[in-house]
Amino acid sequence: MRFFEDFEVGEVIRLPSVSVDEAAIVEFARKYDPQPIHVDPAAAAEGHFGGLIASGWHTCALSMRVLADWFRQAEVQGMGSPGLESVRWLAPVRPGDVLTGSYEILEKRASRTKPMGFIKQNLELTNQRGEVVLRSIGLGIIRRRPEAGC
Amino acid sequence: MRFFEDFEVGEVIRLPSVSVDEAAIVEFARKYDPQPIHVDPAAAAEGHFGGLIASGWHTCALSMRVLADWFRQAEVQGMGSPGLESVRWLAPVRPGDVLTGSYEILEKRASRTKPMGFIKQNLELTNQRGEVVLRSIGLGIIRRRPEAGC
Repeated sequence: MRFFEDFEVGEVIRLPSVSVDEAAIVEFARKYDPQPIHVDPAAAAEGHFGGLIASGWHTCALSMRVLADWFRQAEVQGMGSPGLESVRWLAPVRPGDVLTGSYEILEKRASRTKPMGFIKQNLELTNQRGEVVLRSIGLGIIRRRPEAGC
Repeated sequence: MRFFEDFEVGEVIRLPSVSVDEAAIVEFARKYDPQPIHVDPAAAAEGHFGGLIASGWHTCALSMRVLADWFRQAEVQGMGSPGLESVRWLAPVRPGDVLTGSYEILEKRASRTKPMGFIKQNLELTNQRGEVVLRSIGLGIIRRRPEAGC
């Protein structure tokens, strides 16, 4: 199991990959972001990006998926997140893209009152062409080792 | 139609409402955030929140939905977003919640080179008990009026 004590500032963890196809892009966007550039291939072909692109929120959701998959694999003792400090959608995500996550620990700080600690992380997704499509600076809460005695 | 010129700093726009049930919470989370607190009602009942709660990313996606619905109604000439400056998940979102959006214009700035402008907005979702569950400071790009001649 991975506790707060097992994260090191500067550590970069390679996360799993996830692929995204047109059906998934359209399905997500119909529910949550039904703009033509995300749901209408013909209209999107005429637009700025020359084709359908994923909603930025879909890209964020995919970044959570690869993080959650790694948390499960590594048995990370996560306790949720209060939020994020920054999100940047840097390049379009298109049907057929394969996105690989990386997770860098920027800062960590133990709680003074509870058996947990806070981490600040840079979570990025990079596509199969090596382009970073998403960069998000987020906050996480991780349980401390029981033997920390706090 | 609503162009960049039609947004005023300090303006607060009431967005549509959206409801969320257990099936939608579980469906989103199975795909994007499969942690027990979002997908397993029995495990979640034993956890910190005493029941199933929506993934924070699901809440973000719902905030996009109410914004996109209003953009369509008001014919906002949106051109996408480079990202967000902050996201805070302030209270849990539970099955049966009804979330209403508000959208406050914090700053605006016209592009010097292109017929568009940038806005900074505070997008919040408030539940049926009056609790703000999500606060996000985001950036938007809006087309300028054609007669602006830029």
